[in-house]
Amino acid sequence: MVLDAIRAAGTISRVELTQTTGLTGATISTVVRRLINDGLVVESGRGESTGGKPRVLLQLEPSSRYAIGINLDHAGIHYTVADLGGSIVASGSLPGAGSDSPRSVLERTVRDVDAALEAEGIDRSKVLGIGFVSPGPIHLPVGMTFVPPFMQPWAGFPLRETVESLSGLPVLLENDATASAIGEYWVGGVEHTTAFGTLFLGTGIGAGVLVNGAVYRGASSNAGEIGHVCIDVGGPMCWCGSRGCVEAVAGPGAVVREALELGVPLTGSSVAENFAELAAAAKRGEQPARGLLERSAEVVAVAAQTLANIMDLGHIVLTGPVIAIAAEIYEPAIAAQLKGTFFARLNHRIRVAVSANAAQAAAVGGAALVLHTELAPRLPGPGRPVIH
Amino acid sequence: MVLDAIRAAGTISRVELTQTTGLTGATISTVVRRLINDGLVVESGRGESTGGKPRVLLQLEPSSRYAIGINLDHAGIHYTVADLGGSIVASGSLPGAGSDSPRSVLERTVRDVDAALEAEGIDRSKVLGIGFVSPGPIHLPVGMTFVPPFMQPWAGFPLRETVESLSGLPVLLENDATASAIGEYWVGGVEHTTAFGTLFLGTGIGAGVLVNGAVYRGASSNAGEIGHVCIDVGGPMCWCGSRGCVEAVAGPGAVVREALELGVPLTGSSVAENFAELAAAAKRGEQPARGLLERSAEVVAVAAQTLANIMDLGHIVLTGPVIAIAAEIYEPAIAAQLKGTFFARLNHRIRVAVSANAAQAAAVGGAALVLHTELAPRLPGPGRPVIH
Repeated sequence: MVLDAIRAAGTISRVELTQTTGLTGATISTVVRRLINDGLVVESGRGESTGGKPRVLLQLEPSSRYAIGINLDHAGIHYTVADLGGSIVASGSLPGAGSDSPRSVLERTVRDVDAALEAEGIDRSKVLGIGFVSPGPIHLPVGMTFVPPFMQPWAGFPLRETVESLSGLPVLLENDATASAIGEYWVGGVEHTTAFGTLFLGTGIGAGVLVNGAVYRGASSNAGEIGHVCIDVGGPMCWCGSRGCVEAVAGPGAVVREALELGVPLTGSSVAENFAELAAAAKRGEQPARGLLERSAEVVAVAAQTLANIMDLGHIVLTGPVIAIAAEIYEPAIAAQLKGTFFARLNHRIRVAVSANAAQAAAVGGAALVLHTELAPRLPGPGRPVIH
Repeated sequence: MVLDAIRAAGTISRVELTQTTGLTGATISTVVRRLINDGLVVESGRGESTGGKPRVLLQLEPSSRYAIGINLDHAGIHYTVADLGGSIVASGSLPGAGSDSPRSVLERTVRDVDAALEAEGIDRSKVLGIGFVSPGPIHLPVGMTFVPPFMQPWAGFPLRETVESLSGLPVLLENDATASAIGEYWVGGVEHTTAFGTLFLGTGIGAGVLVNGAVYRGASSNAGEIGHVCIDVGGPMCWCGSRGCVEAVAGPGAVVREALELGVPLTGSSVAENFAELAAAAKRGEQPARGLLERSAEVVAVAAQTLANIMDLGHIVLTGPVIAIAAEIYEPAIAAQLKGTFFARLNHRIRVAVSANAAQAAAVGGAALVLHTELAPRLPGPGRPVIH
């Protein structure tokens, strides 16, 4: 709790810490001494005196600890290394599934991450752990229980166990959308807010929600599945078994399929690459790409409103690979929808913003998950394993 | 916390209380003495000895405190009086809006509740307060900010202030769906579960969610607005300003309108009465009533799945006036939908049940809200005013 208060404040004195945390001066004094001995906190100069001697200011020592985020998604594997202060100090990408076995993909990834740590001169003893992030639904002791067709070899694969044994580091699992929300809270500098959510737009669509800084997880850490809510009862079948899902109607896969049906020449070898071509054409104002993306944005805006009406959010951040390349099409549609017809609009407004880390949101979120688990005050609800 | 542990256990010894709460024997001893002095708890005999002297069992004294729930809805006003143990000891109904002013409706209601307390011999000093429940969205300091056309005179009316001044009792406001969830948890005997929700089906449709016994409230206590999520992007306009809402497509108002368009002779003077006529005909297997209600149930089932996929629920209770008269049509449709296509179905199943208090769910929830606020352990999140 003290460490989180120091992080949130940037620099803070011991006296201010007693005010912020409600702990006694003696307790703060003892805890701060331990944090300094462990190298997590340093004294960073003196603040304004309020009478009497000037107060010594404390701040995090960013290079004292690191966390790794690895994101496995349809398009490949991305990883990031963040320091204790939430700054990204290294990142990289590798091809994902393809024809290789999950185990060999993970071996390559862990070797690559190791090389990145070495290149940055980061001592492995300072690495808290790995946040391994994948599309949901995930089953915490294992990995993904249920995956899109493209990722079949990963269904039921013992992700956590394998990455732990390959890396020798503790591993936490999380779905991409929830990880992106933790990343936004931790690395993206979202201010403390009652109910905050990310809308994660990639090949899959999902949402992550934090309430008063605590992750909303539901019964099995698979909350926020906004890509699999129905916006058209008679709509197309989705890979998840349901009908008219947002992802099936308006996700990148649906947009690319519609473009191909209209005879648009696309040269990419994956949905992500073809969607990127369409997004570039749409931004140049070319039809039918522009119309297809605007239609997708309208449906995603409806999904954003569904999320907001059910979770009563005060703040939504748009993130993920689709936002990284097409924020200017999605953001206005979502903002307009919520401004016009969000159900509790007479009670409070919803801020809509675009993430500064949209392209790497899930990997950043994986690293943030480790920091959050280690540093955030313990919160009620189904616990996360704590790394020490 | 101790009181809630005693309530949850039914009967419990001081030693067991130390195990359940994690408090020391000395603390339990002091707290229990105070609860006994205040009349909230009584010693109720001796349990099995585990060696040494038999343990004295403690239990709530149900008649030591009471709570009142008042529900204002489209169809009228209902009230209930519950004792500390969550048993309903009195209830009643009055006509609602009509042509009378909100103030005169509330005056009549408070007089009626006073008469009911007197008839039951309940001392007003034992009444903790009133939970006043209405359709959302509500604005806690005032009342409803935004109401369906039928309830226009109530928009912006100072509900809380007026009921407090008329009754001389503290008043808490809540929306009907959230209240129904608290009622189910408190009075309906829902077991402690990670993520639990009610689907409240009345003239309006909404949901209430509790996570580990804490109400999920979102940014402004207007979470769970499942009646205003879109299931048809091109669908009919809803009174809320949005399009294709579940309530507009499949709520009782829509069902009655479709029946009238098909020439079904209906004799009721309100949506609720006409819907009841259709439900009775549907249960006799008559067409087109049966088909219309089945179609409504299919759409509501989709809404239940949206709620479950976003909040990752482990348990849903169906409640509200529509369930009171047509559970046999709605329950199978909702259970089948969730069994087949709930997104996290490989991780855990969702229990679907029907409330034992469906007809009076909102009023029961109002009384439960008062008990919950008074007795439940203090929880994080936007606080409720505490009654003392």
